[in-house]
Amino acid sequence: MAEKIILDCDPGHDDAVAILLAVANPNIDLLGVTTVGGNAALEKCTYNARACLQQYGATDVPVHAGCDRPLVHPLEVADYVHGETGLDGAELPVPTRPLDKGHAVNWIIDTIMNNEPGTITLVPTGPLTNIAMAMRMEPRIVERVKQVVLMGGGYHTGNWSAVAEFNVKTDPEAAHIVFAEKGWKVTMIGLDLTHQALCTPAVQGRIDEIGTPTAKFVSELMDFFRKSYQDAEEFTDPPVHDPCTVAYLIDPSVITTRRAPVEVELRGDLTVGMTVADLRGLEPSPEECNTQVAVKLDFDKFWNLVIDAVKRIG
Amino acid sequence: MAEKIILDCDPGHDDAVAILLAVANPNIDLLGVTTVGGNAALEKCTYNARACLQQYGATDVPVHAGCDRPLVHPLEVADYVHGETGLDGAELPVPTRPLDKGHAVNWIIDTIMNNEPGTITLVPTGPLTNIAMAMRMEPRIVERVKQVVLMGGGYHTGNWSAVAEFNVKTDPEAAHIVFAEKGWKVTMIGLDLTHQALCTPAVQGRIDEIGTPTAKFVSELMDFFRKSYQDAEEFTDPPVHDPCTVAYLIDPSVITTRRAPVEVELRGDLTVGMTVADLRGLEPSPEECNTQVAVKLDFDKFWNLVIDAVKRIG
Amino acid sequence: MAEKIILDCDPGHDDAVAILLAVANPNIDLLGVTTVGGNAALEKCTYNARACLQQYGATDVPVHAGCDRPLVHPLEVADYVHGETGLDGAELPVPTRPLDKGHAVNWIIDTIMNNEPGTITLVPTGPLTNIAMAMRMEPRIVERVKQVVLMGGGYHTGNWSAVAEFNVKTDPEAAHIVFAEKGWKVTMIGLDLTHQALCTPAVQGRIDEIGTPTAKFVSELMDFFRKSYQDAEEFTDPPVHDPCTVAYLIDPSVITTRRAPVEVELRGDLTVGMTVADLRGLEPSPEECNTQVAVKLDFDKFWNLVIDAVKRIG
Amino acid sequence: MAEKIILDCDPGHDDAVAILLAVANPNIDLLGVTTVGGNAALEKCTYNARACLQQYGATDVPVHAGCDRPLVHPLEVADYVHGETGLDGAELPVPTRPLDKGHAVNWIIDTIMNNEPGTITLVPTGPLTNIAMAMRMEPRIVERVKQVVLMGGGYHTGNWSAVAEFNVKTDPEAAHIVFAEKGWKVTMIGLDLTHQALCTPAVQGRIDEIGTPTAKFVSELMDFFRKSYQDAEEFTDPPVHDPCTVAYLIDPSVITTRRAPVEVELRGDLTVGMTVADLRGLEPSPEECNTQVAVKLDFDKFWNLVIDAVKRIG
Repeated sequence: MAEKIILDCDPGHDDAVAILLAVANPNIDLLGVTTVGGNAALEKCTYNARACLQQYGATDVPVHAGCDRPLVHPLEVADYVHGETGLDGAELPVPTRPLDKGHAVNWIIDTIMNNEPGTITLVPTGPLTNIAMAMRMEPRIVERVKQVVLMGGGYHTGNWSAVAEFNVKTDPEAAHIVFAEKGWKVTMIGLDLTHQALCTPAVQGRIDEIGTPTAKFVSELMDFFRKSYQDAEEFTDPPVHDPCTVAYLIDPSVITTRRAPVEVELRGDLTVGMTVADLRGLEPSPEECNTQVAVKLDFDKFWNLVIDAVKRIG
Repeated sequence: MAEKIILDCDPGHDDAVAILLAVANPNIDLLGVTTVGGNAALEKCTYNARACLQQYGATDVPVHAGCDRPLVHPLEVADYVHGETGLDGAELPVPTRPLDKGHAVNWIIDTIMNNEPGTITLVPTGPLTNIAMAMRMEPRIVERVKQVVLMGGGYHTGNWSAVAEFNVKTDPEAAHIVFAEKGWKVTMIGLDLTHQALCTPAVQGRIDEIGTPTAKFVSELMDFFRKSYQDAEEFTDPPVHDPCTVAYLIDPSVITTRRAPVEVELRGDLTVGMTVADLRGLEPSPEECNTQVAVKLDFDKFWNLVIDAVKRIG
Repeated sequence: MAEKIILDCDPGHDDAVAILLAVANPNIDLLGVTTVGGNAALEKCTYNARACLQQYGATDVPVHAGCDRPLVHPLEVADYVHGETGLDGAELPVPTRPLDKGHAVNWIIDTIMNNEPGTITLVPTGPLTNIAMAMRMEPRIVERVKQVVLMGGGYHTGNWSAVAEFNVKTDPEAAHIVFAEKGWKVTMIGLDLTHQALCTPAVQGRIDEIGTPTAKFVSELMDFFRKSYQDAEEFTDPPVHDPCTVAYLIDPSVITTRRAPVEVELRGDLTVGMTVADLRGLEPSPEECNTQVAVKLDFDKFWNLVIDAVKRIG
Repeated sequence: MAEKIILDCDPGHDDAVAILLAVANPNIDLLGVTTVGGNAALEKCTYNARACLQQYGATDVPVHAGCDRPLVHPLEVADYVHGETGLDGAELPVPTRPLDKGHAVNWIIDTIMNNEPGTITLVPTGPLTNIAMAMRMEPRIVERVKQVVLMGGGYHTGNWSAVAEFNVKTDPEAAHIVFAEKGWKVTMIGLDLTHQALCTPAVQGRIDEIGTPTAKFVSELMDFFRKSYQDAEEFTDPPVHDPCTVAYLIDPSVITTRRAPVEVELRGDLTVGMTVADLRGLEPSPEECNTQVAVKLDFDKFWNLVIDAVKRIG
């Protein structure tokens, strides 16, 4: 049976690929997309999510807009990576489906409370503001959710500071709320993993060969993303972070994980927003520890899933 | 015209007097009561709010339950002050009006957005969790609210630490969100002021003389409150914090204020939750500074308002 | 018998008056002056200390230079208060006694260890760097010192931030080391007290009447100090902080104190360097608490001591 | 020409091997040993340093005792690793040379100031208290020292918390002072490196084969150290941290380093004492960055140096 997911995102080039994978792969049942201010301002991310669904022919998927800024800190956007629109580089179709009414936080709560317990996986690929807000408004969602598989953090790798990643560092209090919750299982797909998900020229060549509008759309996004990462981050190929979450849900063998306690630093001068994973001991048992971190990507399996999704959309 | 207020509270003995004043005084139009975990657990505070309204014959006032814990920190309750139920000492009537449906945060947002701009005053007398959540879910409430008059903090006085007050210290991030917002005017009725609002034997004698059920109800609450403050806080008479907010709205001459910048400390080891007011300079102008602090209580005017309210209820 | 003191200072206009009082009053036996970077850079403070002693005819008093910067934080100087030289406004005599050899920290340690236990009072009127360093190099000085009477901090008053005072805020770790030490008695003469020690025109008129070179020297310093405080701090008359320490040692009735726990905040974003005094409870007993704070100045007694000192020097 | 070094240590089993290497290798000129409270209390570490020198026949090397506790935090000792004496497991000879007079901090200052500029390398293998104190008492030592090569910290590895190492975490302020100093070059030999310096059974077999008293002494220390690391830290073989510093000075090809900015976190709740290295960018140039971190150990070269040292002592 397909995995029911809620994709809470801030598109963003790699979010666009995550949406693609969620829409196209038959093992995923995308209940809806919710948006949050992050890579770009909320209204841009929301528009981008709707445009991506339009591009992928998925106008049956609802989109609900959520919080426009982090809980405590001011919003910082990553426009130097994602451009002025948040999704520079490709031409976006105009969405025909109007934005769905109702706040993302309320929609997340209602969707979880109205589905069978243990059936819905939360897949946040932006700052965790909406998820944290939903937890505080309706604490019972925690025990009803199947699991949380998020893109964010890193145990040895940072990008928004020496040791912190963008999604967690921009709303560290929200991330703390999610990671500190003992009632659900959290899988952290952090930079240690996603920096392995590089869109190499060989990979992009395979996408280009498909020759469909969506292949062109994705490839143009990757062109822009490559250039951003070359200019700003000293990367040769861009790491396509967010779809790793969906790929892991389609096929867990795509990613090797290990169980480890993870906490979010809220106070450090140099380390605020760091996901502090304790990797000293032997792996704790699932009873002792509800968090696991992604360690190793099966590069070929991952990109095969993405390319398969591009082909399925046509 | 009567001031429209939303009373966001966690009853609590002094909250019970704040509700009384809001219900009984003709200058106040109490649109609804919302509750938050604070002095006691949320469900107790919510029950207490409904029971107070029942006691005061105000079953037309809706009650919506809100957040059961602070944004980031775990909940700490003040049961050593308010007893096991949150309102020990008096016999509570059983509420006939059922708890209203809908989360306090959504009700606060809807009520503000559906009323005329600039007409509603928020009166928080507990931790500021609901208010902060509403601000993050619907940022437009800030410019639509008339003002915020809150009980919390203190510029020279602490009770939950040497320098921090209970409502602010239990949810410092929420308080920070409220105080740091430049788009509205915040009046801080802190401990510097409320420690002047002592229920002396003379005052309580005047309440007792009234001889009505509500007079008895209030007096029994004060008996318990006095004993708590004597046992736990080295006070002779209990400071009746929360109704100072409503009294100020009924008659601003009850309280002398001064304009001063106020920020909430989020990180200190000794000072977390402190409301840091800068009292060094001359008073800034209203354009420069949207916060003011309560300095001096007109003791007689204040208690006259409370006693008048008791009499009006009967 | 005269009180043996070590004056650890950073002259500074008010330090200059503290040195005067220590030199001139027969109840004080000034063993030596040590200097620290604070109001101005170390070499300026050291020169100023020597020049003051020259002015006061006290060339028998040794001066040892100490640390030129705080333990952890970078040095901030208060040149907007004390001027370019640290002692602007009066003409300084050229010191005839050469600077004494040996670091202030070593001299403090040696002097304490070579005197009878319980006989020496430390009087720091600048950042507490030298004292903290001496404590860490030779922990036994703590039990040999009679007491510490320092100018710094404030329980309700700040000047270098809303809630922190210059001497403590510029080296909060050093202040923490001094206040957290349970083995000695610390009297904090903070801004709450020293803002009462105003050099009013009436006071300065009495100084001017004396008509001696030292009266002129002090009066010129006060002119400059008044102007600084008027321009930068919204004061009419300048508070003459540092000599309050020496005055208290000459005659404890000059200052009313109360016992209270005092800790230094090291981490707050808004409160770093605050001296957090817990004034909630009844006063703790001396056995429970080794710190006391200065509350009330006897204005006339204080200035009589200063004026007497001016007269004695001639 | 032999490298002149001052070894500032807290023996400790691995410090004992560092002393051995410094005494025995002809490329090192050990000017003196200074001690600091760390692995054990100061008096134990000091005795252990003297006993090691006695064992190695190096009674010409002076030992000066330094600070008995960190600058700000209370002392934590690692007795669960090093045992009651700090050097459990081997029988220590009674030192014939008395403890040298004078505080380590003063001796470090005098030795640096009395030697040619640029000739002395500081080799701290314990908490950095003495070094930081010397820097604050005599700032000119910074430009006179050749370099600092220290054991401490780790860019991806912790032992005293998930992300912090013992020497840095026990005195983070002192470590901050050392790392933040731009005037000298600091090489951090952290846990990332020293966890490669494992005393395997094969290595220990080679030591045992030597058959001398010193071989026996070292081997007994390693037996105890192995057991500690097996019991407390989930290691099979013990990492012999401290001699890696001296080995690097004897032959830099023993350790591969990379240049990277390193700062010490002083405030984090989870990360205090972490050495935060920024490894994101390309390596900065020496002009931009005065810190480098040790990355890769040449295991064979390292142990050959240690075994050679054992043989030389006899």
